[in-house]
Amino acid sequence: MLETLTAEIIAIGSELLAPDRTDTNSLWLTEQLNSIGIEVRLKTIVGDDDARLEEAIRDATKRSKVIITTGGLGPTEDDVTRKVAARALGRRLSLDEEILEELRQKFLRFGHVMPERNSRQAMVIEGAEVLPNPNGSAPGMFIDHHGVAIVLLPGPPREMRPMFETNVKPKLVGRAGNVRVVRRMLRVAGLGESAVDEKIAPIYTQYDNPQTTILFNQSEIEIHLTARGRTEDDANALLDRLSEQLEEVLGDSVFSFAGEKMEEVVGLKLSVNGYTVAVAESCTGGLIAQRLTDVAGSSKYFMEGVVAYSNDAKTRTLGVDPALILENGAVSAPVARAMADGIRKLANTDFGLSVTGIAGPGGGTEEKPLGLVYIALSDEVQTKHRKLQLPGDRQLVRWRASQAALDLLRKRLI
Amino acid sequence: MLETLTAEIIAIGSELLAPDRTDTNSLWLTEQLNSIGIEVRLKTIVGDDDARLEEAIRDATKRSKVIITTGGLGPTEDDVTRKVAARALGRRLSLDEEILEELRQKFLRFGHVMPERNSRQAMVIEGAEVLPNPNGSAPGMFIDHHGVAIVLLPGPPREMRPMFETNVKPKLVGRAGNVRVVRRMLRVAGLGESAVDEKIAPIYTQYDNPQTTILFNQSEIEIHLTARGRTEDDANALLDRLSEQLEEVLGDSVFSFAGEKMEEVVGLKLSVNGYTVAVAESCTGGLIAQRLTDVAGSSKYFMEGVVAYSNDAKTRTLGVDPALILENGAVSAPVARAMADGIRKLANTDFGLSVTGIAGPGGGTEEKPLGLVYIALSDEVQTKHRKLQLPGDRQLVRWRASQAALDLLRKRLI
Repeated sequence: MLETLTAEIIAIGSELLAPDRTDTNSLWLTEQLNSIGIEVRLKTIVGDDDARLEEAIRDATKRSKVIITTGGLGPTEDDVTRKVAARALGRRLSLDEEILEELRQKFLRFGHVMPERNSRQAMVIEGAEVLPNPNGSAPGMFIDHHGVAIVLLPGPPREMRPMFETNVKPKLVGRAGNVRVVRRMLRVAGLGESAVDEKIAPIYTQYDNPQTTILFNQSEIEIHLTARGRTEDDANALLDRLSEQLEEVLGDSVFSFAGEKMEEVVGLKLSVNGYTVAVAESCTGGLIAQRLTDVAGSSKYFMEGVVAYSNDAKTRTLGVDPALILENGAVSAPVARAMADGIRKLANTDFGLSVTGIAGPGGGTEEKPLGLVYIALSDEVQTKHRKLQLPGDRQLVRWRASQAALDLLRKRLI
Repeated sequence: MLETLTAEIIAIGSELLAPDRTDTNSLWLTEQLNSIGIEVRLKTIVGDDDARLEEAIRDATKRSKVIITTGGLGPTEDDVTRKVAARALGRRLSLDEEILEELRQKFLRFGHVMPERNSRQAMVIEGAEVLPNPNGSAPGMFIDHHGVAIVLLPGPPREMRPMFETNVKPKLVGRAGNVRVVRRMLRVAGLGESAVDEKIAPIYTQYDNPQTTILFNQSEIEIHLTARGRTEDDANALLDRLSEQLEEVLGDSVFSFAGEKMEEVVGLKLSVNGYTVAVAESCTGGLIAQRLTDVAGSSKYFMEGVVAYSNDAKTRTLGVDPALILENGAVSAPVARAMADGIRKLANTDFGLSVTGIAGPGGGTEEKPLGLVYIALSDEVQTKHRKLQLPGDRQLVRWRASQAALDLLRKRLI
């Protein structure tokens, strides 16, 4: 029998009730909980509002076996979670001297004296296990309340996520039922959403388990697979079978099989081959360099980037012949190629990658419309370029151009 | 007496509890409700789950004056909203022959015979006003339940939105009375969360209206102010008064008064003064260039960026004296200053901005730990630098370094 543990998530903070804010913590938490066979049945978003929060926590304890709250553990007046959770559970709240001292030390390490108000972050609910927060000042709490697990976590994802993974997940695994849910994400570049669906629908519609969802995310197609099994191995075997079939029809358009980002895939390929790269960007304005260097260890293969926004910079720093710009315009195949060659020679790398284009909102003409982008890749033997016409606004054109350029390099490295 | 009407939103549908889905209807509804002076105090997301939905609706009627549900009005078994709402309110549900006939006609107009299961969409709750749905088959309902307005709307935005605007909003305006809610966001750089709160708590705690929420978002502090008034002008006057007081204690740490991003503020200041800038980055890897060029029209003031990841690039492209690197290391004040001078001269701009640091996770030493960052700003008259010790992981150190560098330029431009 498939029996899953039920959970609910309470996101706390008045800012989460504004029209421009959405609670993303619960998405990540849902994925984590699902992966250990726990199903999320309800989510509540409540402001810094004592009465409503108290009611939400009290109601939750009556119907769910796992309750996770995020937010409201900061040092300010409106961080009410500790106080209200204690009241909802009928437990005392008291100052823990040891945690207070740790907090003081944490501040001192960064050369500050702890502000007095932060001492409220050392208040602990009776019977709670304190969850250390290596990335912030607010510790979390884990309370077993008559068999219901109540977990208080801070709101910032950088603090919340490692705390959940290290200190909460292992405890919950023990409580979860006998179903394991495993997800996998394939990432695809260079194909449209309907093209992908047309290729893979005949395959994935044959299966109820795994379930397949296709998501269009900026310039990438994400194929989400969710499998259920008695064990993780069972679920993984189902995923292996399906993803092999999908890969067969999608070929090298699939660039990632475990959710890795494009820049991580490219970085790994450069790294294992001992290759180096340098980048010359115009319309992407540093985005490609930023993505490549976002990967830890990228200094091994990323040598230099030039954001040549002005024609002068293209000529002076990258050595593009001014006549080439005059004749073809800055957004053209010859200039893209000269930029790629120029940065490769300047930085003395194996590869030179370049982008020039019109990201908008201004600057488009009939002949060279918004979204027109040239990318080029230069190596010792040859220089290749591609012309793209990318849909979307400025941000999206920039992102898509960076993705296409990185994908050009990825395919060269296969 | 200013009394805002309190609302809550219940989003219904199991798909909204998946890890890759978020409820966006409530954001749009919140904006709509706020604009007519109604405050959203709670949001619930519940699956196609009779018991939990019934409880959610019943609880909501006890604490809120306006309740809006979205979703669960379709023709299938798991569309439970009508049935469960009737039960929660203790009202009968019965078939409305007139609506049934309209539904049949609607299907016929598109050349179809109405499937039998769609007849459940003609079920109406006792006492409800039926809300026509011009873009779909599911009608909505408006119920006045002992003074509480309960509104059932379909989930698809293209059906829900026009129904709300045409048939719901006018009814709620009458109930909302004469209160308007206006929001404003101040952004702060260069100060920690507790430091900000310590400065401003003595001020904002004096006011119930506007309400103040402080949010820590990457390297920025966001101060969210929400004011209620009889008119928008009244609310804005309250916001003006409070934000002036806050500005007085925070000084030039406040860089944005209407939610503008740092790169937009800096860009505007460069633009109106006719100044130009170029950037030399090491550990931020192109992030500053990317942020500056993310702003439309930035080609007017942003000329060039160099991502000098290798020492060789620092020397060759930026003209940093190799002896300087040898003597002080690449992460040092003299090298940061030489990079700023170098890029300014190379690109022939008014300002040269530079960053060099250790973003991690590797590369830290006792003398030069992770998070050590130098930023420098060069102009024709002088070169300034600052030494920073930034907490956080690789991404956060990079972000914070980019923010501090942009902030250095912003303060120079005041």
